[in-house]
Amino acid sequence: MAFEHRVEHVDESMLIIQANLDDMNPEHTSYITDLLFEQGANDVYWIPIIMKKGRPGVMLNVLIEESAAERMEGIIFRETTTLGLRYVRATCHRLGREFYSVDTPWGPIHVKAGFHGGELVQFAPEFKECEQAAKSYGIPLKQVYDDVRSRFLQSRNGKREQ
Amino acid sequence: MAFEHRVEHVDESMLIIQANLDDMNPEHTSYITDLLFEQGANDVYWIPIIMKKGRPGVMLNVLIEESAAERMEGIIFRETTTLGLRYVRATCHRLGREFYSVDTPWGPIHVKAGFHGGELVQFAPEFKECEQAAKSYGIPLKQVYDDVRSRFLQSRNGKREQ
Amino acid sequence: MAFEHRVEHVDESMLIIQANLDDMNPEHTSYITDLLFEQGANDVYWIPIIMKKGRPGVMLNVLIEESAAERMEGIIFRETTTLGLRYVRATCHRLGREFYSVDTPWGPIHVKAGFHGGELVQFAPEFKECEQAAKSYGIPLKQVYDDVRSRFLQSRNGKREQ
Amino acid sequence: MAFEHRVEHVDESMLIIQANLDDMNPEHTSYITDLLFEQGANDVYWIPIIMKKGRPGVMLNVLIEESAAERMEGIIFRETTTLGLRYVRATCHRLGREFYSVDTPWGPIHVKAGFHGGELVQFAPEFKECEQAAKSYGIPLKQVYDDVRSRFLQSRNGKREQ
Amino acid sequence: MAFEHRVEHVDESMLIIQANLDDMNPEHTSYITDLLFEQGANDVYWIPIIMKKGRPGVMLNVLIEESAAERMEGIIFRETTTLGLRYVRATCHRLGREFYSVDTPWGPIHVKAGFHGGELVQFAPEFKECEQAAKSYGIPLKQVYDDVRSRFLQSRNGKREQ
Amino acid sequence: MAFEHRVEHVDESMLIIQANLDDMNPEHTSYITDLLFEQGANDVYWIPIIMKKGRPGVMLNVLIEESAAERMEGIIFRETTTLGLRYVRATCHRLGREFYSVDTPWGPIHVKAGFHGGELVQFAPEFKECEQAAKSYGIPLKQVYDDVRSRFLQSRNGKREQ
Repeated sequence: MAFEHRVEHVDESMLIIQANLDDMNPEHTSYITDLLFEQGANDVYWIPIIMKKGRPGVMLNVLIEESAAERMEGIIFRETTTLGLRYVRATCHRLGREFYSVDTPWGPIHVKAGFHGGELVQFAPEFKECEQAAKSYGIPLKQVYDDVRSRFLQSRNGKREQ
Repeated sequence: MAFEHRVEHVDESMLIIQANLDDMNPEHTSYITDLLFEQGANDVYWIPIIMKKGRPGVMLNVLIEESAAERMEGIIFRETTTLGLRYVRATCHRLGREFYSVDTPWGPIHVKAGFHGGELVQFAPEFKECEQAAKSYGIPLKQVYDDVRSRFLQSRNGKREQ
Repeated sequence: MAFEHRVEHVDESMLIIQANLDDMNPEHTSYITDLLFEQGANDVYWIPIIMKKGRPGVMLNVLIEESAAERMEGIIFRETTTLGLRYVRATCHRLGREFYSVDTPWGPIHVKAGFHGGELVQFAPEFKECEQAAKSYGIPLKQVYDDVRSRFLQSRNGKREQ
Repeated sequence: MAFEHRVEHVDESMLIIQANLDDMNPEHTSYITDLLFEQGANDVYWIPIIMKKGRPGVMLNVLIEESAAERMEGIIFRETTTLGLRYVRATCHRLGREFYSVDTPWGPIHVKAGFHGGELVQFAPEFKECEQAAKSYGIPLKQVYDDVRSRFLQSRNGKREQ
Repeated sequence: MAFEHRVEHVDESMLIIQANLDDMNPEHTSYITDLLFEQGANDVYWIPIIMKKGRPGVMLNVLIEESAAERMEGIIFRETTTLGLRYVRATCHRLGREFYSVDTPWGPIHVKAGFHGGELVQFAPEFKECEQAAKSYGIPLKQVYDDVRSRFLQSRNGKREQ
Repeated sequence: MAFEHRVEHVDESMLIIQANLDDMNPEHTSYITDLLFEQGANDVYWIPIIMKKGRPGVMLNVLIEESAAERMEGIIFRETTTLGLRYVRATCHRLGREFYSVDTPWGPIHVKAGFHGGELVQFAPEFKECEQAAKSYGIPLKQVYDDVRSRFLQSRNGKREQ
């Protein structure tokens, strides 16, 4: 029932770009996060930090492929208030991924599964589809998640038992 | 050797004023903290929080006596970016306090002691005096602290043993 | 140029509902925040906390009018994983608010202004309109903000000088 | 299959005791947490805060019944470094609770369920039992959780369908 | 009107020194921050972390030039409580910087501007000068900032329009 | 009186493995921390971060020797919910360490001391032994710490003076 596939792999030419921000309006963070993802960032996250004079700042972190560095730096300089940024080399290890479709009372919902050395180690219902089901049917989001997870497990176990 | 004294007491008419800030330049926090202390706040502290749209904001907390509320609200509205604030009633229990002078190789340094039900439960070297000694004598700050604490303990134990 | 108005006021019958969560999927927080706002919460925010066994949990905070308590509790019990919640009484002081329209190169953008004792103490460009302008015109969001703020200030000062 | 029971109820005489700590060895927090729970605290949690001079402190929070206040204050003054504490009145709303036993390949594991207005809104496998099963059988903890949750859901749905 | 200048550049031989601290008095952090800046650190910041046994520790981060490593390590070992530290290589990209003087009702205030590829992307009023003006004239700090920013923008736009 | 010894050294082949988690039950963190330490991790710590859609996630950090990477990755993929991880190269500088035994009213308690360039720069009472003494004798943990530290200092100073 899988319909999309990505092989487990290691990427050795990644960069983590970091910028410490102690004078930026926090309202802008969600906009900047979205923009960086749209422009190809592999991940974007913010770490609360304490800076000079005890200021409660945030550290922007952007995980990117080395080849995207210049474009990403341009965005960070234009959109944040930083006067400098730093980058650190990183190696990424990404699991093989497959998507499965699970039948539920609220229609089919996808589950993203992760494989390490060919063995399934992760599975997670797709957030947006669960959210949509919860809203449309007026049921708690956590109930949708639990149900999808339970059905996925039963289908896996069913197969193993045959 | 004590020279200042305050009795243990409970104050039932305290307020905690809180304001959630998601669009303020964090550079301003230290200035606002100092200003509120100068104007009579009993305590000022900031809590990192996550606000609407996942913004990394801060919650300003100001502990004050009820009678200072109006003046403090004026400062908060003028100096922060908030459009509203809230307050919660609180009761404060403060230990009896005495200051002692401890002789050290770097001159006398004060220790603030706290008493609960007449019994010494806290003692702490005065930060500014330790900092001054560390700078003047070029020794680690933590060494000054440790030494003052050790000497205070010995002087207490010495008295008990006599 | 103002077109909407709300008077400064104090509301004494507010509640802060709090629930500590150490076993909830963090993916659900944004959904819960949106749902609580839709259902009439005055504010929703999350505080990172450290719980039993050093678990990195979050505390959900929902500011509501007393009359909404039962409905909000129902949502919190259904959508989060908590087995209990607590509420604390609070008094809210909200500034008078007016909206102004500022002409910019990217069309009119509104500014929300806050008044304390009749005096303007806050003004902030509307986030969504700035975001829209930044996206449509391909300019940095912070540039839109700065420009709107500057134009608003000039128009205020212009009036005062006349 | 339930064997323990507690009714949903509201308790209006709770206190949240708070103490801001900027000079305490963080090593002591876990010891203090355990001690307060042993002495009858309903909940204990720590909030990272930023205090005077930008110090990264922690705020101790202890939720207790009003009648335990004096005993708890004694512990806090003896075990932490605070010179004062404050308390805020709170009302607690606790769900009805029942424990169920679920049969798993690793033996029976309990599930704690929460009821709001008679309706099941929460269920969670007991952490310690899952941890024990994971260690004894050498399987991932998350797999034990998922399996217990799935089995509990199936048993509930099975009953409803009959 | 610029009077100081630094060219945009990339520095490839930077180190981030990190030390996790779970048994240090948080009072010492501001002292250590100041000391490290005085001794030539390029940046110093603290990250709240959760360590062994769920302790709320802090991670000290010091950004330095490789050549300063030994001296900085000495300070960190003497002044913090750590038994070890680690460092990670980093590359820093710093904007070109110029300082401008802006005439305000409270005297001239400097603005630090940042240039990326020759284009102005950042500008920020100098904190200390704004703070001084706010204190001397008894006006809100944010009003000084806003005014300086607005005047700087107008002067830039004025030039462009000529 | 020292009985165990480790020389100051620098280890250049360390890795920091990092995984950002926004959909994991925080209850599992303490279990995962313990497991990673048991399997040979040099350090394990968690950083509160803000992820996509403003989710309050955590970043797992595991400091390991390069040779342990594969085994540690296996544990992280099995026990957390991550679909990928990254690692960054780090160099560790560890102080020389010696353990001393200090006689106290509650029996002997060990002190771990750290040496930089042959000079004592750190000393810390062993947490577990202090905890045990505090529990057995019903005295505050901080009192045990203070006493051990003071006795250790006196014994050092005594030797120097002879």
